[in-house]
Amino acid sequence: MVGETAPNPSQADPTHPRIWLNARIATMAPSRAGLGGREGLGTIEGGAIATVGGRIIHVGDAADLPVLPDAERIDCEGRWITPGLIDCHTHLVFGGDRSHEFELRLAGASYEEIARAGGGINSTVTATRNASEDELVAASLARLDRLMADGVTTVEVKSGYGLSADAELKQLRAARRLGGLRHADIVTTFLGAHALPREFDDKDRFIDVLIADILPRVAKEKLADAVDAFCEGIAFSPAQCERFFKAAQALGLPVKIHADQLSDLGGAALAARLGALSADHLEYTSDQGAAAMAAAGTVAVILPGAFYFLRETHKPPIEAFRRHGTPMAVATDCNPGTSPLTSLLLAMNMAATLMRMTVDECLLGVTREAARALGRQDHIGTLEVGKQCDLAIWDIERPAELVYRMGFSPLHARVWRGQ
Amino acid sequence: MVGETAPNPSQADPTHPRIWLNARIATMAPSRAGLGGREGLGTIEGGAIATVGGRIIHVGDAADLPVLPDAERIDCEGRWITPGLIDCHTHLVFGGDRSHEFELRLAGASYEEIARAGGGINSTVTATRNASEDELVAASLARLDRLMADGVTTVEVKSGYGLSADAELKQLRAARRLGGLRHADIVTTFLGAHALPREFDDKDRFIDVLIADILPRVAKEKLADAVDAFCEGIAFSPAQCERFFKAAQALGLPVKIHADQLSDLGGAALAARLGALSADHLEYTSDQGAAAMAAAGTVAVILPGAFYFLRETHKPPIEAFRRHGTPMAVATDCNPGTSPLTSLLLAMNMAATLMRMTVDECLLGVTREAARALGRQDHIGTLEVGKQCDLAIWDIERPAELVYRMGFSPLHARVWRGQ
Ligand SMILES: [Zn+2]
Ligand SMILES: [Zn+2]
Repeated sequence: MVGETAPNPSQADPTHPRIWLNARIATMAPSRAGLGGREGLGTIEGGAIATVGGRIIHVGDAADLPVLPDAERIDCEGRWITPGLIDCHTHLVFGGDRSHEFELRLAGASYEEIARAGGGINSTVTATRNASEDELVAASLARLDRLMADGVTTVEVKSGYGLSADAELKQLRAARRLGGLRHADIVTTFLGAHALPREFDDKDRFIDVLIADILPRVAKEKLADAVDAFCEGIAFSPAQCERFFKAAQALGLPVKIHADQLSDLGGAALAARLGALSADHLEYTSDQGAAAMAAAGTVAVILPGAFYFLRETHKPPIEAFRRHGTPMAVATDCNPGTSPLTSLLLAMNMAATLMRMTVDECLLGVTREAARALGRQDHIGTLEVGKQCDLAIWDIERPAELVYRMGFSPLHARVWRGQ
Repeated sequence: MVGETAPNPSQADPTHPRIWLNARIATMAPSRAGLGGREGLGTIEGGAIATVGGRIIHVGDAADLPVLPDAERIDCEGRWITPGLIDCHTHLVFGGDRSHEFELRLAGASYEEIARAGGGINSTVTATRNASEDELVAASLARLDRLMADGVTTVEVKSGYGLSADAELKQLRAARRLGGLRHADIVTTFLGAHALPREFDDKDRFIDVLIADILPRVAKEKLADAVDAFCEGIAFSPAQCERFFKAAQALGLPVKIHADQLSDLGGAALAARLGALSADHLEYTSDQGAAAMAAAGTVAVILPGAFYFLRETHKPPIEAFRRHGTPMAVATDCNPGTSPLTSLLLAMNMAATLMRMTVDECLLGVTREAARALGRQDHIGTLEVGKQCDLAIWDIERPAELVYRMGFSPLHARVWRGQ
């Protein structure tokens, strides 16, 4: 596919053509290999990328560039270009923070004392319910800006801190609005089954309300691109998650799941059986679960920020995922309670350092495989003709630097939809 | 001391007076307490800070401000002000990087294969020797800028990748030059006894050369503010370090030590016996070592970045330091081999998350105690009258946020020497 060129899109397109020249390109496309490049990342030395109308119309040798006399030409001076990064699992929109709880815990407070001081997920639910949509947008924008400073062009955002129809819809609307305020794609997920809200005492009864009331409203207003549930002893059982997911699928919504983070309830196998886009966390997933996910094409989303922050010691079965060919993504899990992390580069470093994912696995995990975890692999995640022209241009000598450094973004420029 | 006001400095001073109003101030001064504030951080609500000539002339109630009719007045709108942060242990100036070695290790390469591929500290020594002073400055500036984005106003920089007279002096000159290029103080440390350079095969012989040749040149050119050594089985013995330190002290240079990182050789006790400014790393320091350091006033510099990156499991004896009253600082240890970390906020998060230091210990560890580790406690590290007016102004609701977040700098503004 090197040098492949698509037909010129409509001349009426308002987006000006642009060409990036003299770049080292990591396309992340599986079909790209050879050229002395590395198989895994699809590298091209001294390559060029051209865009018209926000889509890629050429990636490969500069000699094969289509004729674009009016194009803006940008000399990359040998810099590396990767696809814009994709953070495929965040809880970016929430009210308040949990720094006080963090402080109390370090000072030796018991869980009971923290609960009495108003800590725990309920404190975030209360703060999110009490915040206006505008306040949620304002609080989330600073976090989105920080993600974008790492070259991120697509961010998944979950609800799940409202846990009532009005508050869940408010959270999803706030997430959608972020996309209008920044040059980034926001993909939303309705995490209705995140926790049991305090006004309920029966989990099945809450699932009933989700299915009968909240989910149909979310679907009707087209506020969610997918549906998620937290499958865990402290949250919902596989049977409860399955009931919720089947209702979502009946409305045409794909599903994903928080699974096997603290214990193996078989969440990964459930995800595979339902054809979920992804199963996320997976610290306790079994070898059979990993195999089932591979067969179903369900992406394993690794969330090392929560693993680090909670000082977990039981690692997800990376070796089993590798052996079975389960696709692996990496995300921040940005949330106030268990992963107050707003750097996808740092998430990659944690995936490598703490979980021994390789450099290539990490980089594919925030591009190609992250796109797949969102069901958007036809549009983003690799640099190929026809895909959205989302680029991250880096001041680095080799892609490994993006994983190796801690607390440093060598981003030179960020391009979203060609601009 | 609340509201204390110093006499007005000379009117001839070129630096314009400035006043910050309506601030929540964490002075980090031990004498500040009460006012409903927190004992540990010396907090003042609704306070003001005034500067003339780069020094603080007032910190406390706005009502007690001295008359400064020409002063620029800055409304902090309730933001928090801390002292400018101090990174008291870095190896910021070096050539090359070690991302390739990182990548090889993750891909399963053995230490032998990595050594054959040119990895290890020798690769950094070679790259540093081969770089010009200008190249070292340019490579280090990006790292310094990143530290400054976290509100850092003072950075300690060690040599130790030259290991020859010319290369060590080049590294120290490059470090000194950084201070002229940015609004930050650079404190330099001659880490002559870092590793045995490959042209030597006898450690005692190299210590001889350090003492007879390199150290006197460093001292004569006033290129170092302190002297450091790496006391470890893979580096130098306590006896070798002591010989080097005594030569340094004879030239009037204070000493500090990399000690007890991988094993307990008694480095902490040596530091205390010689009255060292600090002992750093300290994973294997004994209870007696901690007590000796407390008695000597030697600061324990905790370096969680290396602990994390090397996946160490043996933690420094934080509880013993706490019990004995050993002052604790926190630093990045920024270096290409074991801690490619350029965020002091992230270093605090690691100190809290991985080593269970409290929020107050972390914050004092990058201000007051970090100043003490550099012997500069009379000039920086707290907000008190007469000290250098180095400030970090933060968009936060409570100081704990600076420790709790990962990969996010809520810095609003940075002030160095009043500007
Ligand atoms: Zn999550
Ligand atoms: Zn060091």
